[in-house]
Amino acid sequence: MVVKVYGPAYASPKRVILCLIEKGVEFETVHVDLLKGENRDPEFLKMQPFGSLPVTQDGDLTLFESRATMRYFAEKYKSQGTDLLGKTLEEKALVDNWIDVEATSFNPPIYALTFQILFAPALGLTKDEKVIQENEEKLAKVLDIYEERLSKSKYLAGDFFSLADLSHIPFTQYLVGPMGKEPMVKSRKHVSAWWDDISSRPSWAKTLQICPPPM
Amino acid sequence: MVVKVYGPAYASPKRVILCLIEKGVEFETVHVDLLKGENRDPEFLKMQPFGSLPVTQDGDLTLFESRATMRYFAEKYKSQGTDLLGKTLEEKALVDNWIDVEATSFNPPIYALTFQILFAPALGLTKDEKVIQENEEKLAKVLDIYEERLSKSKYLAGDFFSLADLSHIPFTQYLVGPMGKEPMVKSRKHVSAWWDDISSRPSWAKTLQICPPPM
Repeated sequence: MVVKVYGPAYASPKRVILCLIEKGVEFETVHVDLLKGENRDPEFLKMQPFGSLPVTQDGDLTLFESRATMRYFAEKYKSQGTDLLGKTLEEKALVDNWIDVEATSFNPPIYALTFQILFAPALGLTKDEKVIQENEEKLAKVLDIYEERLSKSKYLAGDFFSLADLSHIPFTQYLVGPMGKEPMVKSRKHVSAWWDDISSRPSWAKTLQICPPPM
Repeated sequence: MVVKVYGPAYASPKRVILCLIEKGVEFETVHVDLLKGENRDPEFLKMQPFGSLPVTQDGDLTLFESRATMRYFAEKYKSQGTDLLGKTLEEKALVDNWIDVEATSFNPPIYALTFQILFAPALGLTKDEKVIQENEEKLAKVLDIYEERLSKSKYLAGDFFSLADLSHIPFTQYLVGPMGKEPMVKSRKHVSAWWDDISSRPSWAKTLQICPPPM
C-alpha cells in the first residue's frame, strides 16, 4: 500500500513530502482544507486527535508528528536516496539536536508570524501587530544564533545536509515569499548562503510543483 | 571521561538524568543557577547559544536539547538497562511521535504555567493570571487527548514504558507538587494511573534524591 500524506497544501506536511522525495519513496497526498475546518471532522480526529497536520499512513502505521515521521522514513529507507541522518551515532545526535532546535526555538515564532500574516486575514481575523512584532524579535534572535553556527559548519548539524536543515524549508519559504520578510534571511550572510543552498534542492522544486497552494 | 550534565536542579535536565539512570550510565552534574543568570555567562553560551538547560557532554560531543540527548543515550546504550526506544522500527516511530507531542503540545503550556507560578515570584515578577488561565485551558485539552490515548494503551507509545513517557515526568512533578494542580491529573482516570505508574519508578526517586531543588 502506497504511503499517504494528508494536508500537502500546508507547511508541516511538506517536511514529510520533502523527505519522501529525497528518499525516493512513492506516495500519494490527500487534501485537507483547514480553512473549511476539515481537520475537525470526527473521522479526521480519529487519526490525529489534535486536529493538526500532517497525518501520514504507511500501511497500518499512522504517524502525525512531522518530525517523527521524517525520522521514521529516513531510517526505514536508510540505504536509498539521500542520507539525511548522519553516518555515526554522534552525527545522528547532532542532527536530532538541531531538529529539536527547529521544533522548539525556530518554529514557535515563525508559526506565529505565519498565522498572523498569512492565515488571520484568510480567516477574517484582524492581524495582531503586537504578536507580530514580538515574534519577529524572537525569530531574529534565533537567526542570529544560526548565523554564528553556520559560520562554523555548512549545515546546521555539520558539513552534511540533513533532516535538521530540511525541516526548516517549508516555513522559511513562507517567510521569504508571501510574508515579505526576505531581509531577515538576506541580511545574515551565512543564513542567506545556507537558505540559497537548501532551497535550491530539486526535492523542494518538486514539492512546490506537486503541492497545491495553501489558499 | 564521565558524562557531564549541566543544570540538575531544573526540569529539562532531569529528562537526561532519568534516562542515564534507566540506562545505568555513570554521570556527574554541574550546577547552573538560572536565578543568578549563570546561563548567560559567555563561557556557558559557547556550549549552549540559547542560554537554556541542559547541556550534556559525552567526551567531545556536546548536546543541548534534552530530548535529542535522551535519544542519543538510549541508542548508544541500547543493550544495557531499560529499553526506552521500542523494539521495532514502527514502535520506535510511535515513541518518536509521542516525544514530539510532549515537545510541541504538552510542554509549551506546562512550561508557561511553571514559569508563571513557580519562577516569576522567585524572580520578583508579578504572575500574569491571564497567561495562567489560558495555559491551564490548553494543558487541560492536551490531557483530555492523553486520557483517550491511555484508555487504549498502558503508555503513550504502546504497552511499553519509553522515552515518550519519561519525557513528561519532570514537569508533571511540578504540576502535581509545588504548583498545586494535582486535580488536573487525578480527575482523569487513565492519566492518573499512568502518572502513578511512571512517577513511582526507582529512577525518578533517585533523580529527586541526587538533584538539588530549583530554588
